[in-house]
Amino acid sequence: MLQFEKNDKLVFIGDSITDCNRARPVGEGLFDAIGKGYVGLVEALLTSTYPELGIRVVNMGTSGHRVRDLKERWQTDVIDLKPDWLAIMIGTNDIWRQYDVPTMTENHVYIEEYEATLEELILQTILQSKPKLKGLVLMTPFFIEPNKADRMRATMDQYGEVVKRLAAKHGAILVDTQAAFDKVLKHLYSATLAWDRVHPTQAGHAIIARSFLKSVGFDYTKDPE
Amino acid sequence: MLQFEKNDKLVFIGDSITDCNRARPVGEGLFDAIGKGYVGLVEALLTSTYPELGIRVVNMGTSGHRVRDLKERWQTDVIDLKPDWLAIMIGTNDIWRQYDVPTMTENHVYIEEYEATLEELILQTILQSKPKLKGLVLMTPFFIEPNKADRMRATMDQYGEVVKRLAAKHGAILVDTQAAFDKVLKHLYSATLAWDRVHPTQAGHAIIARSFLKSVGFDYTKDPE
Amino acid sequence: MLQFEKNDKLVFIGDSITDCNRARPVGEGLFDAIGKGYVGLVEALLTSTYPELGIRVVNMGTSGHRVRDLKERWQTDVIDLKPDWLAIMIGTNDIWRQYDVPTMTENHVYIEEYEATLEELILQTILQSKPKLKGLVLMTPFFIEPNKADRMRATMDQYGEVVKRLAAKHGAILVDTQAAFDKVLKHLYSATLAWDRVHPTQAGHAIIARSFLKSVGFDYTKDPE
Amino acid sequence: MLQFEKNDKLVFIGDSITDCNRARPVGEGLFDAIGKGYVGLVEALLTSTYPELGIRVVNMGTSGHRVRDLKERWQTDVIDLKPDWLAIMIGTNDIWRQYDVPTMTENHVYIEEYEATLEELILQTILQSKPKLKGLVLMTPFFIEPNKADRMRATMDQYGEVVKRLAAKHGAILVDTQAAFDKVLKHLYSATLAWDRVHPTQAGHAIIARSFLKSVGFDYTKDPE
Amino acid sequence: MLQFEKNDKLVFIGDSITDCNRARPVGEGLFDAIGKGYVGLVEALLTSTYPELGIRVVNMGTSGHRVRDLKERWQTDVIDLKPDWLAIMIGTNDIWRQYDVPTMTENHVYIEEYEATLEELILQTILQSKPKLKGLVLMTPFFIEPNKADRMRATMDQYGEVVKRLAAKHGAILVDTQAAFDKVLKHLYSATLAWDRVHPTQAGHAIIARSFLKSVGFDYTKDPE
Amino acid sequence: MLQFEKNDKLVFIGDSITDCNRARPVGEGLFDAIGKGYVGLVEALLTSTYPELGIRVVNMGTSGHRVRDLKERWQTDVIDLKPDWLAIMIGTNDIWRQYDVPTMTENHVYIEEYEATLEELILQTILQSKPKLKGLVLMTPFFIEPNKADRMRATMDQYGEVVKRLAAKHGAILVDTQAAFDKVLKHLYSATLAWDRVHPTQAGHAIIARSFLKSVGFDYTKDPE
Amino acid sequence: MLQFEKNDKLVFIGDSITDCNRARPVGEGLFDAIGKGYVGLVEALLTSTYPELGIRVVNMGTSGHRVRDLKERWQTDVIDLKPDWLAIMIGTNDIWRQYDVPTMTENHVYIEEYEATLEELILQTILQSKPKLKGLVLMTPFFIEPNKADRMRATMDQYGEVVKRLAAKHGAILVDTQAAFDKVLKHLYSATLAWDRVHPTQAGHAIIARSFLKSVGFDYTKDPE
Amino acid sequence: MLQFEKNDKLVFIGDSITDCNRARPVGEGLFDAIGKGYVGLVEALLTSTYPELGIRVVNMGTSGHRVRDLKERWQTDVIDLKPDWLAIMIGTNDIWRQYDVPTMTENHVYIEEYEATLEELILQTILQSKPKLKGLVLMTPFFIEPNKADRMRATMDQYGEVVKRLAAKHGAILVDTQAAFDKVLKHLYSATLAWDRVHPTQAGHAIIARSFLKSVGFDYTKDPE
Repeated sequence: MLQFEKNDKLVFIGDSITDCNRARPVGEGLFDAIGKGYVGLVEALLTSTYPELGIRVVNMGTSGHRVRDLKERWQTDVIDLKPDWLAIMIGTNDIWRQYDVPTMTENHVYIEEYEATLEELILQTILQSKPKLKGLVLMTPFFIEPNKADRMRATMDQYGEVVKRLAAKHGAILVDTQAAFDKVLKHLYSATLAWDRVHPTQAGHAIIARSFLKSVGFDYTKDPE
Repeated sequence: MLQFEKNDKLVFIGDSITDCNRARPVGEGLFDAIGKGYVGLVEALLTSTYPELGIRVVNMGTSGHRVRDLKERWQTDVIDLKPDWLAIMIGTNDIWRQYDVPTMTENHVYIEEYEATLEELILQTILQSKPKLKGLVLMTPFFIEPNKADRMRATMDQYGEVVKRLAAKHGAILVDTQAAFDKVLKHLYSATLAWDRVHPTQAGHAIIARSFLKSVGFDYTKDPE
Repeated sequence: MLQFEKNDKLVFIGDSITDCNRARPVGEGLFDAIGKGYVGLVEALLTSTYPELGIRVVNMGTSGHRVRDLKERWQTDVIDLKPDWLAIMIGTNDIWRQYDVPTMTENHVYIEEYEATLEELILQTILQSKPKLKGLVLMTPFFIEPNKADRMRATMDQYGEVVKRLAAKHGAILVDTQAAFDKVLKHLYSATLAWDRVHPTQAGHAIIARSFLKSVGFDYTKDPE
Repeated sequence: MLQFEKNDKLVFIGDSITDCNRARPVGEGLFDAIGKGYVGLVEALLTSTYPELGIRVVNMGTSGHRVRDLKERWQTDVIDLKPDWLAIMIGTNDIWRQYDVPTMTENHVYIEEYEATLEELILQTILQSKPKLKGLVLMTPFFIEPNKADRMRATMDQYGEVVKRLAAKHGAILVDTQAAFDKVLKHLYSATLAWDRVHPTQAGHAIIARSFLKSVGFDYTKDPE
Repeated sequence: MLQFEKNDKLVFIGDSITDCNRARPVGEGLFDAIGKGYVGLVEALLTSTYPELGIRVVNMGTSGHRVRDLKERWQTDVIDLKPDWLAIMIGTNDIWRQYDVPTMTENHVYIEEYEATLEELILQTILQSKPKLKGLVLMTPFFIEPNKADRMRATMDQYGEVVKRLAAKHGAILVDTQAAFDKVLKHLYSATLAWDRVHPTQAGHAIIARSFLKSVGFDYTKDPE
Repeated sequence: MLQFEKNDKLVFIGDSITDCNRARPVGEGLFDAIGKGYVGLVEALLTSTYPELGIRVVNMGTSGHRVRDLKERWQTDVIDLKPDWLAIMIGTNDIWRQYDVPTMTENHVYIEEYEATLEELILQTILQSKPKLKGLVLMTPFFIEPNKADRMRATMDQYGEVVKRLAAKHGAILVDTQAAFDKVLKHLYSATLAWDRVHPTQAGHAIIARSFLKSVGFDYTKDPE
Repeated sequence: MLQFEKNDKLVFIGDSITDCNRARPVGEGLFDAIGKGYVGLVEALLTSTYPELGIRVVNMGTSGHRVRDLKERWQTDVIDLKPDWLAIMIGTNDIWRQYDVPTMTENHVYIEEYEATLEELILQTILQSKPKLKGLVLMTPFFIEPNKADRMRATMDQYGEVVKRLAAKHGAILVDTQAAFDKVLKHLYSATLAWDRVHPTQAGHAIIARSFLKSVGFDYTKDPE
Repeated sequence: MLQFEKNDKLVFIGDSITDCNRARPVGEGLFDAIGKGYVGLVEALLTSTYPELGIRVVNMGTSGHRVRDLKERWQTDVIDLKPDWLAIMIGTNDIWRQYDVPTMTENHVYIEEYEATLEELILQTILQSKPKLKGLVLMTPFFIEPNKADRMRATMDQYGEVVKRLAAKHGAILVDTQAAFDKVLKHLYSATLAWDRVHPTQAGHAIIARSFLKSVGFDYTKDPE
């Protein structure tokens, strides 16, 4: 059964995969202000299926961001928005910069900093949110590459483990987006879902959205009546 | 159970609600060539859930078109594409022009012409398609207005009846998009789904996509594995 | 007989229906600085019919504004301009946000706040204007929908009642734009006048302009000689 | 009393003063296709005041055109549109080119050609129109300059005399736009109505529109009911 | 004989007739930074005829400016540039606003303010310039209208008299641009030189440039050798 | 004394130095259709000084053209325009391509072809022009480089000799633009007049215009009266 | 030793990796008409090192092309250009479409067609070129992915084998670009050289250019003297 | 042997020849942030040949800058970036302004200021860099003109002497770009390498890049393995 209650406010934060051209400063409201990625899709499915609940979805993704960047804007972009639910998907750029600009080491966020910062943000949210956060969703970052020996995929899996560990430790709902992609990658080559293995097509965003919705008890068979 | 078979080609044709900025001349392929409306959403859900089937989705919607305009391009835009499945949603502009430019009567497509032309296109497709069409889906046009006494809504319902009658007569699958919107409109005011009551938000497109998928046996609980 | 006197300055304030792409910061002067909606039309009819009066028309409408937003800029955008006459038409967005983004409740301006704020602005203008305001015109907001059972129309009518009440209480001239539209809607479907039932065509702006001019004694039979 | 009957189609043809950014190839329909000059204003006043008549207004003005250019497109742009009423205002560029590019004599349309061509077009319309033209309106060209000794104004007055003569000869309704402007010019300097004394402001367009409407019996006191 | 000496710096200040799209903040240097009006022409003729002198020409015209606006920027745009020679042509907008926006009286600069301000700027320049100004050129504003009974022309002539008076009083070189235009207007209609009678064509700018050069002793028969 | 007579039509043809953004297909008329290079300057000086003559100046320059390209368009761009006077300045690109894309030899126009083609065009014009050409002006191409040992300058001088020879042979007026530039280059480095030594600044265009005007008897001391 | 002779013309043909925004219709000449990829780099190194040879480099790459597309334009884009040397690098899109739009099978060029078409083009060039082709360079397509088990890489290697086979069979010079990339990929992750593993950075283009130059005997130690 | 060590950071600073559209504020990273001139070429050749070294190249060129401008930004744009190696090429605009805007003397940087400022920057870098600078490369500015008697070339040679003197005095590596261009100019006319003799084509940038790489021991025969 859907875990959200009437009028719950659900905030998503992350990087370009979350952003998808959302409005500034707050990604909510008319004219696709919520962006056209998985967040828009989640909102569309929630609103069309549970119109009576009036779930409020806010997209606070920012292209290029790493967990280090989220920390800079956590107060204004998460705490001040007073979410009932918060979903975090971060880590792609923390890792990618290690592989696409390997010499610019000051731009890399290595796994220790990643874990420490992410946990700090989780704790801050749990402790400081008023009203109290009803639920936290941690989504693993993913790399659309099935070869686990690939260096960037291997790193991604390590960061994914951090997310899983923190979800368990802090009682958050876990969304294993990498696992969801892996199932599809058995049938489709990575280029079908993303030329750069990072920014998904609509089908890729559907994979993320459906993983998220599954984790919060979304019922597709429900009718709005 | 999903009615599509491996490698089936599914063509959607219609007006701006179908179009959603699809590529020209054929709405298929990389870079959102399929548009970002309900067709894109259908494709995303099919590909992410049934990647092993390799369903091929083609968007041939054109903004502003009426059934009279579809007739002009039926050979190139439907028959020549050799669809296995064809979905038609047309009628909004046939009616709307009667209400937004009432004096330009030569632009109106009244119900007799609507029914005759639509049936002609259906028959042409059934008879001429090679390979033989596996399935035809007729989707009613809709107006996002719950007041059945509203003049445009009343006309829309009459055209919807035509679609239902033709679906029954020719053994097509019927998608009653108006009924699907009506359920949501019990909870939401029309402006939430479309400022002009015609062009839907993402949530509105999700209503259409889900109605369509339900009619062809889409199974949300299936896993790609 | 026209109530304006030689060289009177007439300021219009409101939302997008007033704005119509006026110049910033002050909507007055060359090159359609006054916008091309009902304000431009009022100015055109005044200047062409009463050129000897030198009436000065200023457009201070701002798209998207609610009465709450007018309050923020009342000093600079009304009081500081030293109007002889002031016309206010506000309320559409105060209501619309309740219907198009129902979950974002902090953006809604409910009727109590609407009435209190509007009255506060009226009083402030009457009391603080130097030179003394010669005349105040209160124009009801409108919704181009004839069905009074429509939820947004019903709300609009309530806000319209507030405007009428305040006009009576403070001796302002009342322009019942909703009544003017209702007469035309007996003959034309709403889509002819506005796709979204809010932003009028040129014909819709003519309805507003003519209602306004009637209320201030404009004489169409007068010749400029 | 208004001379137009229910569903009459009224075509305006002329130069840039008529054009005002109308749609191509035919200036009629949604989204200000009719342009935002005096034609748009005429349409707005007709539709808002006589909505029950369903008058259809079409703008076929083209910037820069002279009577010689109208002749080139008369079949497609007038006859083929089957107007019930036709309004012609031409001559400004026929004259202006004599004054702004005096050496390019092949671009000048002198008064003999002007008169002969205009009469030819009038006769062609009266004789060939099917259904029969109900009414013809001839509008003088104008120059927003009160000094009758000004060389271009003097020439304009001669061309205006041609229009008056042809109106009388062929039983057309005459609209003396120059006379209408002259009345306003007693009170306003020409620059208030047009920097170049040719292309009017909104107030200038109101002068033209009101002259036209007066000539066809428009009743401002009528209510749409 | 040319009054300028080797390496003299010549600053022009004025309105849009001077400006002609000059560079900001200082109109001097490569890529037509000097604008393409009469200032550019003066510079081109000086440089091509007296290349050995290295005359430095600076354009400080600003579109829309009146003498009141020049006063605001006199320190930075004239004094700080340390001109050897200064040419001023101002007044068109001081007058034009009285005729094109007659109701916006706070934008008008009447003749008393015009004279007082212009004299103040002249005195400030003579007294404060270091190094001492070698020469001051006062150019009358002009209106490309030969009819001296025209209201705006009549006003222009009054302002022109002010310029002549001040030139005589302060020993400045006078350039009577109006007289120069009047000679040409005996042969050409105003529209040939400027559609709005204010902003000249290249030929109009040549009239100004040649008047200026004549006043400073430019010798066309000189060869650069 | 000026050699042009009342209403003479003067056509300039050439390359980018002539073109300067002229209008298409014919460079004549309002809004700087004549371009803003030396042709515009010639026209401005002629019109401002001899307004009573009504000289008609047409600019048919096309960027990048060589004599070979002129030949392609000679009928439409020269003969059909029925010039009274024709001025030709061509050769820069014929030579430049030999130096900036030396390997693309099919783009080079060597001196034999240059001379033969130019003479062919001259003869064609003299023989076929109706009405008979009153005067032909041949302008040498130029290179803004004083070093005669420079390879491109040396070639330019050879082509200039061809122009001089043909002028003498066919009784044309010769304008030695190279000589005019050389005088100025004694005082100014080439970069002051053109960064690429080909496309002149306004000062450079003034050098060309003045050379041309001198050759046709232009009198700077004349007043328009 | 460099195999090219004085004035040799070298044509490159291929897809987007070759194209890099070259000019149309022929990629040769001023202003980077040759594109800024490996072809531009080859030209830059040839011209700077062997300026005395006047090697002429032409870029005929077209984005998105497959060998099937090259066939369509082979006559105009290769034969008609009369190359002395021809370099072909094609195959990426022939393969990529199999992986990024797997359902659109008519867009795939499978290995049999690839080999047959490529050989046909080679033979046509050898047989029909006049003057006779001096040298043919066949460059393997490449995929910037070191994992040979990757499906697309595996396919790429098969197509590379075709190229090697044809090079051997027809006596062409072989450039094994894949091998060149593989060496670098031992040290750098693929994302450093291309986000999508196809379109290289400048460093990636340097790898291709250097492989090509090595194959034709380019000598980096040579000085232009 | 290449003088750079693993992970060395190499900063280039200069004017537009260095800039070539690099990213702001720091020219390093993805998407050609490094610009597409000689710096991009150096980086491409280093990365493709020595991928194991991870050399980090940063482009800090700014169009139009002179040594005087470098001084303004030396702290942020050089010192703060903590380069291991620094390459400076400056002087073109210091000289060019003396020749293209000779009258604007305050924009000229004469040789005394050039030498003093350049030495000051060198000393500041050597003394203040932490970690200590490993190597300094001084590149002469150049002018693509072989005639040493040309005034701007002669001046350039004097500034080049300053660079050579300072390189010798401070133990910097010298890159004589002028000498490198001179060798090529024996075979090619200057226009082949730069229309304005300053901004090089790709071939010109290759000349600079190869001179630089030669000076730091780059080995073209090395393979990345």
